[in-house]
Amino acid sequence: MRAVVFDDVLKFEPDLVLDTDPADGVCVDVIQAGICETDLQLCQGYMGFRGVLGHEFVGIARTGTHAGRRVVGEINCGCESCSWCSRKLQNHCPTRTVVGILNHSGAFADTVVIPESNLHVIPDNVSDDEAVFVEPLAAACRIPQQIDLQSGAKTLVLGAGRLGNLCAQVLKHHHCDVVVRGRHEPKLNLLRELDIAAGDMSESLPPQSFDLVVDCTGSESGLADALRYVRPLGTVVMKTTVAAPHSLNLADVVIHEIRLVGSRCGPFDDAISMLRQRQVQVTPLISARYPLEQAVEAMDQAARRDMLKVLLYINKSNRG
Amino acid sequence: MRAVVFDDVLKFEPDLVLDTDPADGVCVDVIQAGICETDLQLCQGYMGFRGVLGHEFVGIARTGTHAGRRVVGEINCGCESCSWCSRKLQNHCPTRTVVGILNHSGAFADTVVIPESNLHVIPDNVSDDEAVFVEPLAAACRIPQQIDLQSGAKTLVLGAGRLGNLCAQVLKHHHCDVVVRGRHEPKLNLLRELDIAAGDMSESLPPQSFDLVVDCTGSESGLADALRYVRPLGTVVMKTTVAAPHSLNLADVVIHEIRLVGSRCGPFDDAISMLRQRQVQVTPLISARYPLEQAVEAMDQAARRDMLKVLLYINKSNRG
Repeated sequence: MRAVVFDDVLKFEPDLVLDTDPADGVCVDVIQAGICETDLQLCQGYMGFRGVLGHEFVGIARTGTHAGRRVVGEINCGCESCSWCSRKLQNHCPTRTVVGILNHSGAFADTVVIPESNLHVIPDNVSDDEAVFVEPLAAACRIPQQIDLQSGAKTLVLGAGRLGNLCAQVLKHHHCDVVVRGRHEPKLNLLRELDIAAGDMSESLPPQSFDLVVDCTGSESGLADALRYVRPLGTVVMKTTVAAPHSLNLADVVIHEIRLVGSRCGPFDDAISMLRQRQVQVTPLISARYPLEQAVEAMDQAARRDMLKVLLYINKSNRG
Repeated sequence: MRAVVFDDVLKFEPDLVLDTDPADGVCVDVIQAGICETDLQLCQGYMGFRGVLGHEFVGIARTGTHAGRRVVGEINCGCESCSWCSRKLQNHCPTRTVVGILNHSGAFADTVVIPESNLHVIPDNVSDDEAVFVEPLAAACRIPQQIDLQSGAKTLVLGAGRLGNLCAQVLKHHHCDVVVRGRHEPKLNLLRELDIAAGDMSESLPPQSFDLVVDCTGSESGLADALRYVRPLGTVVMKTTVAAPHSLNLADVVIHEIRLVGSRCGPFDDAISMLRQRQVQVTPLISARYPLEQAVEAMDQAARRDMLKVLLYINKSNRG
């Protein structure tokens, strides 16, 4: 099959043999896939990943209960025998694999193999373009699972990129009073078109004035900024993983009794429901599309500051 | 009056004139006071403090509703006109003074002046020695206010000093399964006598195995240790303020979706109630006593690793 492989260098492989066992799950023929910040980081050496990249995708199940239907797949594959998996917390199974990220071949390929229990069928009124956003949208939907959001909560999202945009939309949907700060005017304009207040990171905001700050900057400085803007007894949601150690003064976290909450993968059902009910707009985030063969160029493009979501189209859909 | 003043150097003043206004509150004649880690840090330049030290005390109210009765005092004095104070969150009033810490003359003196609303009467069955622990015990009681403690929660307290001991006792009282790690055998023995498992910091513990970790180390390394021992989706309570910036990798906070909760001052009512009902033992923590005149020596002693609480006795009590 065709696949995009990272092995110190990133390359397109026209004829990779995927060594799979039927016990590994359902073969899903990938329709299209999205490039994520994590993919870019994996190519910088994050997690020491080697293999087929890709974890945001929509495809057609070739086997199993959902055979012939469009599906998306949760990316954490638990062992299904530990105490975490028995509590349905596969996302935290200590021996989990993660599609396209950790010991699991990814979706920048003709076929990806996923445990059937990870699959979610995509409703007919959700397009392929929308479906490819289920995984990152679920990550944004993780926030209302973790935090008791108050209606009208003064909320600052730092970062207007892919994840920042989705978090802002989800938090607005949950009746938060959302402000976004970013660094690129067209990205800020996308938010303004959704009636979300957005401004440049350099525009000053009153310190210690937000009930909730979500760091989606993807940069080391994001957390220090978040701590500057959160009010005493407020909450900072940490969505940014940076490989480098932070150097910051945490005395204020104690003095102002701040809560910091790490936040990663989220509920696919909630994300699919939001798409089905048109509660979020994701297709304006698509900046470019490339065929799988041009994935290396597509990754270069995705790394540009002015890009939002770059899609790889891989196989024909069966959507009418 | 007699007072212990820090002004670049620490000294005993036999005849300080306290410049007070009756509007500042009730004059409390201090019976005795405790030396806290914060006092030691203030003498190292923390907060740029200058003035009379001391914020853990019991005394006799000279004026006001409680005149003639033994009282302790909450240390945060709010402006009583801002939105924080109107929500009874004086601890976070942005213009608050803090007794013996921030723009407010402290209790290592014959008299301390405190707003009447900050005072709590001490029940007859609570001794002066016990009453002086109300402030630090309240800080420990802050944890069950902030965290929904689960019965049997695997809990690790890092640090077996004054605050670590009190936190361990409070968490045990709330049915947590508490383990303490410290660095000084006699302090660990005090905990063992209370039936709390305690061991040396060097003894290994399984990583990622505690539901709750409380950092009472007072050292920069405490938070990194806490993050090593907390399980995915677990909680770290941060009780340590260190002036130096932390350098630590916070990616795991995101990946394992850890919650970090800054924790400072707590409910005096809860602390007094625990003392009144004999739910906590504090007097074994008293390592030494000095008259106020010897406060400089007492502070030197309190800084020794093998010391727990050092008390300054100041005026005669009226307790029978």
